[in-house]
Amino acid sequence: MAQKGIQDYYPDDYAICYGCGRMNKHGHQIKSYWDGDETVCRYQPEPFHTGAQNFVYGGLVASLIDCHAAGTAAAALHRKEGKELGVEPLSRFVTASLHVDYLAPVLIDQEILMRATIDEIKGRKVVVSIDLFSKDSLCAKGKVVAIQIPDDYLSKYN
Amino acid sequence: MAQKGIQDYYPDDYAICYGCGRMNKHGHQIKSYWDGDETVCRYQPEPFHTGAQNFVYGGLVASLIDCHAAGTAAAALHRKEGKELGVEPLSRFVTASLHVDYLAPVLIDQEILMRATIDEIKGRKVVVSIDLFSKDSLCAKGKVVAIQIPDDYLSKYN
Repeated sequence: MAQKGIQDYYPDDYAICYGCGRMNKHGHQIKSYWDGDETVCRYQPEPFHTGAQNFVYGGLVASLIDCHAAGTAAAALHRKEGKELGVEPLSRFVTASLHVDYLAPVLIDQEILMRATIDEIKGRKVVVSIDLFSKDSLCAKGKVVAIQIPDDYLSKYN
Repeated sequence: MAQKGIQDYYPDDYAICYGCGRMNKHGHQIKSYWDGDETVCRYQPEPFHTGAQNFVYGGLVASLIDCHAAGTAAAALHRKEGKELGVEPLSRFVTASLHVDYLAPVLIDQEILMRATIDEIKGRKVVVSIDLFSKDSLCAKGKVVAIQIPDDYLSKYN
């Protein structure tokens, strides 16, 4: 059985995200893992995720960075609070801001690797930096400000 | 026959983008239109484009902003050079940087409206600001730095 990703510990109500929800059959279902003080995520683009020929469209790069960062933020706060994955409920984060610098084209037939570092944890806010690689080349750098979702978030809007 | 969008004037080689390519049957196929000095784009999310319940995932918001900005950049430079859509070939742009501030949840069952303004055109660089609305509420603000693709772009990487 494959190792559980951070996103596998999201509560069911928050596991339907197109980018990272294990219960969204249409989506990317990305999985992020701790690797020391960083987190990693690998994703194989589909042949139709094209931007120009042979390259991934920029929106996918932004989506992967966004969801990997949200998962990293949740795991980072969880760890800071001394909690273990799978023992206590994992918080869910929303993105306050997303910034992506596109440095080089991302190849569509190669697995994408992302590495995330945690810049800051302050109250409900976690800032995450992400390097995205294709075939060992750094192709994009992302910075995400993620905010822990308040307990009444779903009830407030639904 | 529906009015042609800016993206309908992309050369075939650049019309396969998942976000905005008319030839990508899997993708969003967004279409942007001039509205005075601004451009507009409307998009109906699919039911499975969820983030949390009833809300669109952040990656789609980023993708739509990115592709609407790239189309707007192309049309803006075209217009600045005194060219008309459909008469001379439309340039294609890549994104150098994308920034999105997420202000409020985007409803999944409502049409999304984006309005773009052109902040700057300088050489091959065009800077575009985008407001994204759901049900008349401003839900996200985007800023994109787009760069006109050099003529040898595809041959250089392929």
